Amino acid sequence: MLLPSRPIRSGVEYVDSLRGRKLRIFFMGERVAEPVDHPVIRPSINAVAATFDLAVDDPALASAPSGLTGATVNRFLHVTTSADDVVAQNKMQRRLGQLTGTCFQRCVGMDAINSLYSITFDVDAARGTGYHGRFTTWLAEVQRLNLVIGGAMTDVKGDRSKSPSQQADPDLFVRVVERRGDGIVIRGAKAHQTGCINSHWILVMPTMRLTEADREWAVVAAVPVEAEGITFVYGRQSCDTRAMDGDIDAGNATFAGQEALIILDDVFVPWEHVFLDGEYEFAAELVERFTAYHRRSYVCKAGVGDVLIGAAALIADYNGVEKAAHVRDKLVEMAHLNETIYGAGIAASHESHRTTAGNWENDGLLANVCKHNVTRFPYEIARLAQDLAGGAVVTLPSQADFAHEEIGPLLDKYFRGREGVPTEWRVRVLRLIENMTLGRNAVGYLTESLHGAGSPQAQRVQIARQMDLEQKKGFARRLAGIEK
Amino acid sequence: MLLPSRPIRSGVEYVDSLRGRKLRIFFMGERVAEPVDHPVIRPSINAVAATFDLAVDDPALASAPSGLTGATVNRFLHVTTSADDVVAQNKMQRRLGQLTGTCFQRCVGMDAINSLYSITFDVDAARGTGYHGRFTTWLAEVQRLNLVIGGAMTDVKGDRSKSPSQQADPDLFVRVVERRGDGIVIRGAKAHQTGCINSHWILVMPTMRLTEADREWAVVAAVPVEAEGITFVYGRQSCDTRAMDGDIDAGNATFAGQEALIILDDVFVPWEHVFLDGEYEFAAELVERFTAYHRRSYVCKAGVGDVLIGAAALIADYNGVEKAAHVRDKLVEMAHLNETIYGAGIAASHESHRTTAGNWENDGLLANVCKHNVTRFPYEIARLAQDLAGGAVVTLPSQADFAHEEIGPLLDKYFRGREGVPTEWRVRVLRLIENMTLGRNAVGYLTESLHGAGSPQAQRVQIARQMDLEQKKGFARRLAGIEK
Amino acid sequence: MLLPSRPIRSGVEYVDSLRGRKLRIFFMGERVAEPVDHPVIRPSINAVAATFDLAVDDPALASAPSGLTGATVNRFLHVTTSADDVVAQNKMQRRLGQLTGTCFQRCVGMDAINSLYSITFDVDAARGTGYHGRFTTWLAEVQRLNLVIGGAMTDVKGDRSKSPSQQADPDLFVRVVERRGDGIVIRGAKAHQTGCINSHWILVMPTMRLTEADREWAVVAAVPVEAEGITFVYGRQSCDTRAMDGDIDAGNATFAGQEALIILDDVFVPWEHVFLDGEYEFAAELVERFTAYHRRSYVCKAGVGDVLIGAAALIADYNGVEKAAHVRDKLVEMAHLNETIYGAGIAASHESHRTTAGNWENDGLLANVCKHNVTRFPYEIARLAQDLAGGAVVTLPSQADFAHEEIGPLLDKYFRGREGVPTEWRVRVLRLIENMTLGRNAVGYLTESLHGAGSPQAQRVQIARQMDLEQKKGFARRLAGIEK
Amino acid sequence: MLLPSRPIRSGVEYVDSLRGRKLRIFFMGERVAEPVDHPVIRPSINAVAATFDLAVDDPALASAPSGLTGATVNRFLHVTTSADDVVAQNKMQRRLGQLTGTCFQRCVGMDAINSLYSITFDVDAARGTGYHGRFTTWLAEVQRLNLVIGGAMTDVKGDRSKSPSQQADPDLFVRVVERRGDGIVIRGAKAHQTGCINSHWILVMPTMRLTEADREWAVVAAVPVEAEGITFVYGRQSCDTRAMDGDIDAGNATFAGQEALIILDDVFVPWEHVFLDGEYEFAAELVERFTAYHRRSYVCKAGVGDVLIGAAALIADYNGVEKAAHVRDKLVEMAHLNETIYGAGIAASHESHRTTAGNWENDGLLANVCKHNVTRFPYEIARLAQDLAGGAVVTLPSQADFAHEEIGPLLDKYFRGREGVPTEWRVRVLRLIENMTLGRNAVGYLTESLHGAGSPQAQRVQIARQMDLEQKKGFARRLAGIEK
Repeated sequence: MLLPSRPIRSGVEYVDSLRGRKLRIFFMGERVAEPVDHPVIRPSINAVAATFDLAVDDPALASAPSGLTGATVNRFLHVTTSADDVVAQNKMQRRLGQLTGTCFQRCVGMDAINSLYSITFDVDAARGTGYHGRFTTWLAEVQRLNLVIGGAMTDVKGDRSKSPSQQADPDLFVRVVERRGDGIVIRGAKAHQTGCINSHWILVMPTMRLTEADREWAVVAAVPVEAEGITFVYGRQSCDTRAMDGDIDAGNATFAGQEALIILDDVFVPWEHVFLDGEYEFAAELVERFTAYHRRSYVCKAGVGDVLIGAAALIADYNGVEKAAHVRDKLVEMAHLNETIYGAGIAASHESHRTTAGNWENDGLLANVCKHNVTRFPYEIARLAQDLAGGAVVTLPSQADFAHEEIGPLLDKYFRGREGVPTEWRVRVLRLIENMTLGRNAVGYLTESLHGAGSPQAQRVQIARQMDLEQKKGFARRLAGIEK
Repeated sequence: MLLPSRPIRSGVEYVDSLRGRKLRIFFMGERVAEPVDHPVIRPSINAVAATFDLAVDDPALASAPSGLTGATVNRFLHVTTSADDVVAQNKMQRRLGQLTGTCFQRCVGMDAINSLYSITFDVDAARGTGYHGRFTTWLAEVQRLNLVIGGAMTDVKGDRSKSPSQQADPDLFVRVVERRGDGIVIRGAKAHQTGCINSHWILVMPTMRLTEADREWAVVAAVPVEAEGITFVYGRQSCDTRAMDGDIDAGNATFAGQEALIILDDVFVPWEHVFLDGEYEFAAELVERFTAYHRRSYVCKAGVGDVLIGAAALIADYNGVEKAAHVRDKLVEMAHLNETIYGAGIAASHESHRTTAGNWENDGLLANVCKHNVTRFPYEIARLAQDLAGGAVVTLPSQADFAHEEIGPLLDKYFRGREGVPTEWRVRVLRLIENMTLGRNAVGYLTESLHGAGSPQAQRVQIARQMDLEQKKGFARRLAGIEK
Repeated sequence: MLLPSRPIRSGVEYVDSLRGRKLRIFFMGERVAEPVDHPVIRPSINAVAATFDLAVDDPALASAPSGLTGATVNRFLHVTTSADDVVAQNKMQRRLGQLTGTCFQRCVGMDAINSLYSITFDVDAARGTGYHGRFTTWLAEVQRLNLVIGGAMTDVKGDRSKSPSQQADPDLFVRVVERRGDGIVIRGAKAHQTGCINSHWILVMPTMRLTEADREWAVVAAVPVEAEGITFVYGRQSCDTRAMDGDIDAGNATFAGQEALIILDDVFVPWEHVFLDGEYEFAAELVERFTAYHRRSYVCKAGVGDVLIGAAALIADYNGVEKAAHVRDKLVEMAHLNETIYGAGIAASHESHRTTAGNWENDGLLANVCKHNVTRFPYEIARLAQDLAGGAVVTLPSQADFAHEEIGPLLDKYFRGREGVPTEWRVRVLRLIENMTLGRNAVGYLTESLHGAGSPQAQRVQIARQMDLEQKKGFARRLAGIEK
Repeated sequence: MLLPSRPIRSGVEYVDSLRGRKLRIFFMGERVAEPVDHPVIRPSINAVAATFDLAVDDPALASAPSGLTGATVNRFLHVTTSADDVVAQNKMQRRLGQLTGTCFQRCVGMDAINSLYSITFDVDAARGTGYHGRFTTWLAEVQRLNLVIGGAMTDVKGDRSKSPSQQADPDLFVRVVERRGDGIVIRGAKAHQTGCINSHWILVMPTMRLTEADREWAVVAAVPVEAEGITFVYGRQSCDTRAMDGDIDAGNATFAGQEALIILDDVFVPWEHVFLDGEYEFAAELVERFTAYHRRSYVCKAGVGDVLIGAAALIADYNGVEKAAHVRDKLVEMAHLNETIYGAGIAASHESHRTTAGNWENDGLLANVCKHNVTRFPYEIARLAQDLAGGAVVTLPSQADFAHEEIGPLLDKYFRGREGVPTEWRVRVLRLIENMTLGRNAVGYLTESLHGAGSPQAQRVQIARQMDLEQKKGFARRLAGIEK
């Protein structure tokens, strides 16, 4: 395998670490030779690179002393050792949202290692297995080399009303198809995998509660992205090919998210990278812990929201109406909703508890509440941003027209806003708003806000489970004078 | 000029009528030779063609006996002669939304002729001018030939806090730059003009209340799209180039909307096509009448909403969860919001009154209420559609990948939904949802729903003016026992 | 029986018609001797009286020529003969909401006679019964005497998850307990019956879909309020006893709603007043027709909303802030929501169709949409009204304090608003807002808006049934290129 | 003065401490002899008593070691010494909301002492005054005796568009009317003062930003409730007199809130209790710090919300529909909104910073966001509670009817829910829901949630000030490629 032999120390080194791999990636019907140089893929790599650079620029925010080794590691690879550590993740996430305006793709891995840290401990305690030691050994080396972990949970699922073992095709959830002396062989596919091609390792995990009949689907394993048998199919995003139309039309030319399908076509995993194999009864708990972490990780969207609010304020300024009462009021509403997301996330992290394994895990109810607001408020913030943008956000001529010898000067004349603002500034901020509300980064800011870490109904199920209705009934009975 | 010499009798003839014109159109930095054959432009032409075909297929719905000539004319060219006529427009609009899933571009023209019919009458009565006769003469011929009229109201506006005469550049609102014996010369630009390239005539109108200082900007004129001095710059839409990536990736391969910038570079208009020239004091009333009609025309979005609700129901079906309570509940919510839009529109039309000129005009308050709901509910309907679609709506591989020899079969296997549903069906409906919530027709279903016929604040200003607060205060005083 | 022998011609005569009846009414643990003189009950009688006076003051709005007799009758007793008739009901309802600020209690009866008119016709056609003739004979006499009909549909229901025949106590839904040669005997209770004590006749109807096992519960009958065996228990309303604390503290001293429990303790009904007896298979259809009418009757709340918006504007004025942008904006939002309710109602009525019996019935889907908005928007309007009112709406001293020799002048000094406004005006309008958002008329404006004509879920069930998802799926399939 | 001479050690002792005071209180036009024994007032006293009992029952939650003296004091009298202290306030507040279902009235005092602690320090530093020492001396004694402090900020305000010095009557804001050698004399009135009659001390503070012209209105002073010249006029609450109709009709018979008008008719304050006098330039900062604390104190409403959610779940259970999907979904929505409030509050407290004076103050932006959600979500939670309650919540007969010999058994029969649930339980929980959504505690749960700690617009002004739009614009410019 081509894993780096020396620790990655910067964004630049990270990008270099991705070169020359022999990944099997398809996009738009063609094999991608080198993703690092692909104009559509590169912005998603840049977003991950920003997580390396932030650790250099602001180490207090984006790194932490490893509880495994004592060495300073990137916070995305850190197993939390305190409630403050959990809160610090949120602050780092918001900051990266502000810096990239997109999904920087590393939260899944961070949340996966934190949930696996405690769940492998608990499985070992209950079943006498040795997963926790395997896992920490592996993780310590990943920390040392400062690698990127992609967490791969979501299966392709087929008929959503059926469990893995009930599907017409058993491969619709990833499963163990063979057990050998040196390891296992897995098959299946993981859908819309964030940042997987930009990762060095992929952590395969089950996606839902499993029953005894689903035992073969109860598998957790670390797999190098370069492992034999893996194919990646890059997902199309809204306006993805704008990356080839110029930096202005792209809206956000530097940064973007990434989701791909991972097909695992009989991939071999040696035992030292197998962290669950058949203990189906822990699948639900793993998913619950992972989503507890991950649903509060969506405060990153408050950071992305900061960018969009800023863009809305800019266009209002460029249009000459920043001081109009209704404009001001919309900006306040956007900020209010954005901070409401942040508040629930910070509260969830602050209310962390120590697991039996010793790391810290945030409050599950508040994390679900945070994520559930994320499934709503970015849509309203985006609507308000489009309101302030005006219709030009969807009717602007292309960058090439603005650069055209004949027509360019006329466009410059007619798309001007208030005095003192170059037309290009107006165009650039409008394209950024388009990018975030309809275009490439709308995928991450809107749709992924809906479905990432579980769709809205998944949060409602968890809220229903955790809201402790019986306690609340007790409060009501007491005040109503009802003796039970 | 190349206007058709014989009446257009079908969608096919309409498309033919657009061929061979010498329009000066730019898109993506290049001059467009023949828009009819341009893959990005053609779907917008198809949408207009549907308005011709509907008049053939359902004449009761989409045509009417002209009050000018007695001949049966396309309803989009008809001056209303009863409240039922006004309601019938709404029913036709919803139907066309259902048939095209996009903006079919003819409402602006329809609403413009109805408001100009009465306003020219009123100007003549007040000022002794002869606009009404000119206008009806012109319109009768347009009806006879069954042509498409684009209404051009929105100026590019520059600094939104300033009036036309206060702008640094006087051309930022269209104005009369010369008056000659045979007509006038106008200059300026109209922004995000719906369907203008697909029209035969453009009706230039002022966009806002004007004062005496703005007299030169008070101009209404009919201009052939082929008039000398006109340049069109086609607006980029989200995912516009998907049209070139195949019918599946396009989402809705047949139909799309169209907005372009119209630059009027000293265009001459003979007097017989000038319907207002300097009577600035009627500009506000014209805008109010036009927006009264046009804000209720947005019930077309209920038709587009029908498509999106249907698509959401289809994907739920294909995913095997159509009967889940929360899925059902979301479909109900979508339908509820969609019908709320329709209800206010129909009510506005039903509450029509006869103008002094004799045509019928809908209620202004309810029309503004209708449009104001349109600035909100489609966004929520789109959010719910994405909720039901699942994350695949933004992570699907391209059509070319599905068609790929090696990778295609694997994608077919892994993107399958419930039994009995071909994978391609799932993909097609997901692409349609993407098209309507993020892609090309999201431009029309969402952003244009915000800004078309005036941005949200414009409706609030009208609601404030028309809600008759003093009458309501009187009701309250009476019941509170307050003697004024 | 004490039914009037001469037609009632005014509100005053109506009030007189209620005197001296021997009704068995309980309120606050005591038998009510004469409801007309009871300070808590009287305002509800005044509200009904307003429906008589409006017919005198504005006959075009509140009366109509009877299709049964040709005579002019109160619109509340009129069987619709056109779509315009159905729309006219809505306009009358809004007007009465504006005049009374409360529930005027006659819509149930109006909607009941219209649905029974057609359903008895259909039952006769299907079963060879003679209900329609009985019904129209009875109704013609009620029209002649100009009496008030209360519609009694809602049973007390017991365990909401069970049907009538499944209940532990069979009386939890009204049922036939005996059939005799001259008529039937019914037993049970109808809950929260609007205006029943203020009626002359009560129309008992089943409340839900019935199966064969529920045959004995399938009964429709007209019963005089004075019939032997009937007991009324007056429901407590929020702040009901304020009626005794003075006209200011009452908030709306003149008008209020009324709901009571009707206990039918083996009440005899002669055959000529029995309009359904055992034809259980028509119960669902009766309920659906009735709720179709009645759910759009809730546009009355737009009239009540007009009062509350007016009150909010008044207090803003008295506080000196009517022109503040955020105040103005809240009034606009209130009006927008209020008109949205109205729009759906008017649209439902406008889209009426002729029944087989010949009367006109509104669109069911839009009616459910109208009512569903009524379960939401009045709450938001009330919240905004309280926002504009300021905290004093819930902390004002009593009227007696303001009238107190020592303390009164100080209160007058300290509760003053802007100059030129007597303190008492501020107090009066604040009390009106309290009345409508927390007090007695909040019962009608809020909670009854939720539950009257069916709770929210009942509308959702109807919307689900009527939204025609299959047609919508067809639209989507066509545009997505899916062949079924 | 009658201040207690020994520390209060329990709720019972607290209630005793209120007896025998010679307060001048008016309610319903009469002087109140002994508020402790007044049926309407007593429940509000019980709510305060609960704050004493909680300190006994759960000292970790409701007490803390004083930074002034080291002694353990009630947390409501504690000056925060850490961020955890600030968070602990929120947890105590939510708990008391759960225990009382109403406003327990002590947060204003707690938040006032915390903001005065730092502001007096800052004034001294800037002006060389000695307020901080006076203040801490006074506070230490209040802590020792364990007294209740009411914070009195809101003036009666007159014309809301004018500042204190611009009012027609200068007394519409509390002001210094005389300065003497031994102290000052103040005049004016404070409106809707929470728990003032249940307090021992009142802290008078200015309510808004003041200018130099308003110097005489810049006064902070501690005044015993028994001080000469003070008159209290008890505010009427919705359904206040239900307290006299029996424990069931009251809904929550034990606990209620309290708001009264405090008239300060030339009240003398000795210098040692004057903590600001004329330093108008600190008024805005005092208000901002106080509201920063107080707006996050509204997480108490999440505790009250717990009661209402529990009540809604109970009635659904009693009606036999607790497991219906739509019922479950509404409970989830209620919990989601409720926890969203809590989340923003906890986050605000967690993000506390140390003031220059040394105590800890929470984040202002998140506090405003918390409160702003409180102005919205309780209304929706209340609406949903009424939805689940069914119409009976506003139409139930009185307690006296249920107890009536004749009618009682019939009511018991007909208001029964599912088997196994006594009718009285249903009635009790319905009355509790009425109490919290329309009745006496709706005042605290709804209207006070709107206006307490500042009306919605006040939060929006603060959010506008604190949202740092320039920083956000910078994020957008960077990603859009705009050089400033």
